[in-house]
Amino acid sequence: MSHEKKRILILGGGFAGVYTAMYLEKAMFWGERDQYEISLVSLENYMVFQPLLPEVISGTIEMLHVITPIRRMAKRTRLHTREIVSIDLERKVVTLGPEFLPKTKELPFDHLVVALGSRLNYDMVPGMREHAIPFKYLGDALRLRTAIVQVLEEADNESDLAERRRLLTFVVGGGGFSGVECIAELHDFLISAVSSYPSIKVQDLRVVLLQSADRILPELGASLAKYAQNILEQRGIEIRLQTRLSAVTAEGAVLQSKNSTEPEFISARIVVATVPAAPHRLVEQLPVEKDKGGRVIVTPEMQVAGTPNLWAVGDCAAVPQPDGIMSPPTAQHALRQAHTCASNILATLRGTPMRRFSFTGLGKLASLGHRSAVAEVMGIKLHGFIAWVFWRAVYLSKFPGLDRKWRILTDWVLDIFLPRDITEVRIFHADSVSREHFHTGEAVFEQGDFGDKLYVVVKGEADVQRDGQSLATLKNGDVFGEMALISDQPRSAAVMAKTPLDLISISRDAFDKLVTHLPGVKTSMNELFQARMAVVETLSKPPPSNDLPS
Amino acid sequence: MSHEKKRILILGGGFAGVYTAMYLEKAMFWGERDQYEISLVSLENYMVFQPLLPEVISGTIEMLHVITPIRRMAKRTRLHTREIVSIDLERKVVTLGPEFLPKTKELPFDHLVVALGSRLNYDMVPGMREHAIPFKYLGDALRLRTAIVQVLEEADNESDLAERRRLLTFVVGGGGFSGVECIAELHDFLISAVSSYPSIKVQDLRVVLLQSADRILPELGASLAKYAQNILEQRGIEIRLQTRLSAVTAEGAVLQSKNSTEPEFISARIVVATVPAAPHRLVEQLPVEKDKGGRVIVTPEMQVAGTPNLWAVGDCAAVPQPDGIMSPPTAQHALRQAHTCASNILATLRGTPMRRFSFTGLGKLASLGHRSAVAEVMGIKLHGFIAWVFWRAVYLSKFPGLDRKWRILTDWVLDIFLPRDITEVRIFHADSVSREHFHTGEAVFEQGDFGDKLYVVVKGEADVQRDGQSLATLKNGDVFGEMALISDQPRSAAVMAKTPLDLISISRDAFDKLVTHLPGVKTSMNELFQARMAVVETLSKPPPSNDLPS
Repeated sequence: MSHEKKRILILGGGFAGVYTAMYLEKAMFWGERDQYEISLVSLENYMVFQPLLPEVISGTIEMLHVITPIRRMAKRTRLHTREIVSIDLERKVVTLGPEFLPKTKELPFDHLVVALGSRLNYDMVPGMREHAIPFKYLGDALRLRTAIVQVLEEADNESDLAERRRLLTFVVGGGGFSGVECIAELHDFLISAVSSYPSIKVQDLRVVLLQSADRILPELGASLAKYAQNILEQRGIEIRLQTRLSAVTAEGAVLQSKNSTEPEFISARIVVATVPAAPHRLVEQLPVEKDKGGRVIVTPEMQVAGTPNLWAVGDCAAVPQPDGIMSPPTAQHALRQAHTCASNILATLRGTPMRRFSFTGLGKLASLGHRSAVAEVMGIKLHGFIAWVFWRAVYLSKFPGLDRKWRILTDWVLDIFLPRDITEVRIFHADSVSREHFHTGEAVFEQGDFGDKLYVVVKGEADVQRDGQSLATLKNGDVFGEMALISDQPRSAAVMAKTPLDLISISRDAFDKLVTHLPGVKTSMNELFQARMAVVETLSKPPPSNDLPS
Repeated sequence: MSHEKKRILILGGGFAGVYTAMYLEKAMFWGERDQYEISLVSLENYMVFQPLLPEVISGTIEMLHVITPIRRMAKRTRLHTREIVSIDLERKVVTLGPEFLPKTKELPFDHLVVALGSRLNYDMVPGMREHAIPFKYLGDALRLRTAIVQVLEEADNESDLAERRRLLTFVVGGGGFSGVECIAELHDFLISAVSSYPSIKVQDLRVVLLQSADRILPELGASLAKYAQNILEQRGIEIRLQTRLSAVTAEGAVLQSKNSTEPEFISARIVVATVPAAPHRLVEQLPVEKDKGGRVIVTPEMQVAGTPNLWAVGDCAAVPQPDGIMSPPTAQHALRQAHTCASNILATLRGTPMRRFSFTGLGKLASLGHRSAVAEVMGIKLHGFIAWVFWRAVYLSKFPGLDRKWRILTDWVLDIFLPRDITEVRIFHADSVSREHFHTGEAVFEQGDFGDKLYVVVKGEADVQRDGQSLATLKNGDVFGEMALISDQPRSAAVMAKTPLDLISISRDAFDKLVTHLPGVKTSMNELFQARMAVVETLSKPPPSNDLPS
């Protein structure tokens, strides 16, 4: 590679980034191929076809068919599948994190295209990061599917009615496109799956959609949104408007309705989060002008004003449409932005005039599962089966790559006459050191429980109880639960959250490794253990006064 | 459920266990259904169709199509998808581990069928647990596939030739059925995948099969094994006979040939382990007579002698055939054992005579990938394309469930004209607290490397070097690497293994949590940091004498 080449570097492997690379490849003249070098950085080597992602939940589409390899779409683009550590606009260098070797890698650029999309904002809802299943990436769809089958398996054998109810309750936060399509497919899958679970009936299921606005699908006109709501409600999905998720725990969702001051708790093992969005960490750090949503403000030429070699496209960019409205975060807009961006980068390199982004949207489509959809296309409103056929036809035609089109079509055909898959692929394991959130009054564990973790209080207070009597209060920095790990006995006391409670939990396996090998841990654990044992001995004679549970 | 019911409890969700349940269901009279209750415990809710698992590596079969839901196969069996904690033969109770709630569950039984299979024995080869990818379960096939794409992605951009060579070298340990089928599919996949990687050529790949015996496929006759070896070698697969894997590190495999006293090191990022097998932990603990391989010795009636309500089937059982040979661990034998076992449990309950296991095997089949196979069926030897068609026909016909047959057939048809999938689904994340193994002379990290982990020496010795000079020796219990985490600087020195070296590594993220929250860690890390800083300050003036790296 000669250093004379102009280097165009694209960050992000979503629609916006990959199509910018594709349009660049297409629009380049034959002679320009040696002059310009296109590189793209994406942690994943595939692009997710987001509109069909919900179908992975129900298993209508095989999980690997909803993604397509980036290097088959953009064949003359150099792909780097690493994490991005930093963007240096001054030095014109992007630094990538290490992969197999513990060495970072620097990619210099002449033109930089930022197409990093958005991420779920976990920080606004306590416990969301720890206990909610996000719904945005392929891994999320897979994790959600696995979790659904897992709760069905447990519920089928559960004799405790409250726990059974909790296992069979599903809460989805967010009533936009993503939340609605997610809950529709989730519900579809549940309905077909329960037939394999002899003790679970359809009426045992509770599926709840939370929407903070006063209607679902605010992206669509009111009449279509109302139609969609009726369809979902007829199927038995509970829709809670003007209600938002205010906290998530391992045992359920805390709801806050606009019409009430009291929070409500819904017992549920599966809580899915589809909102809110936040800018990518690297976009947050970028020293350029942003709108209040944290998106990079660009000109209609997709350029960051004042920085002629910096471009932004897709969900991370605030792109003005000709009608004055900002471009919404959809695939169709990302595609056209990518086209404008690619043309204008080449125009800049060639010294020819640039073009302006002039797309205002073709229409809007939302699948409601169960062979039903709503659509608003060029002013025409469609709903029901017709809209659903239209929905499938549009997305199949838009799916990149002939091979994937074939595979998806095959999936759809097989889905007509083969049963839904109910295998639970347990490939996700809980991390050995993780955070947990509990709401006021919730039990961290009960007396007599199996002891598999040690906890450290990070924030909030917890009450230690034995046989219903309060023994002690735990605060920030307090360690508990280690005695069950050391002595291999059931929990000798219960621990209840007195306030909203954040904990760090350490698994038995990691605890064993740490105690054995990390200096300081063994000593302090020994001291703690001796102190506890002394208390326990005192307790066995007079009435209890103060104790910490094992 | 009445307690009068006789409870038959099956442990294990492989061929042996699931087919025992199916044959029990089938052989029960209508009136017996209320008298007998069948339960099965399997951590996964599906059975893996092992013979086709290698095809998941190449992507010929979609990963979810090689598994089939247990509850669709054995519809009247109660399935429990939890880990088994213990088996109590005295009390006739099996205890299951907790799932969502931290509570264990007890399952009482009248008859117990142990069908727990075998596991890979990690303890015999240092570093195997930490760095080799096992090939036995569905998750393994998926992990292997992801790892293969990951090394291709990295190799395509790697300018360091030694690292590039390491990334493109693949070692498979074990030349039995499993190892041969694994390497054949792995090689097939590599050949078709490299066309998408512009800078990788087929001749850059190195694929090595290790076999400790003096020929591959000892399960087959010598002539077929020779044929298979020729086929694989013609494709460019290196076969190393009389050579075994003696250690695995993050950077490669240590080999030991029978003809040499010196170990050999092959630099490789992917090392796959298919041997050796060991008994399941619960079978190890079972207080019954076992053979030298740790398998439960049973009568030809599949019963554990002296314990009329204890049965063992499949790979965990030593089952005598009528010809005096012990039943080999194959699916066809497991199926017939399950049949005998189910009949005899019912015979015992009914008080009718038992039957004896009388199967000696129908034949042997091994796929060699690339539309080629070897087979030995009722004395007839087949090889090449004919054997391959036979191989596919046999397994398709044996695959349980009509829906899965259809899906597999579709996969095979699509595979003829669609390209292989090269998506890398990164759903596996390294655990935050893990073990690592290094061989003598190998670098844990180099000076200037990116610092993302802290290490504790568990076994062996390491040398700290700065600018080529040895500064200190690290031994059992020593901590190193924490300074790069605390100060966010590159590694200030290199650390090399002086002997075979076992370490515990703790990721930056887990380290931050532990330092912040776990008592004792902060103090001891602070002390360490102060001591290091003092040494560094001393060092910055006179020539270095003793130092530990960041």
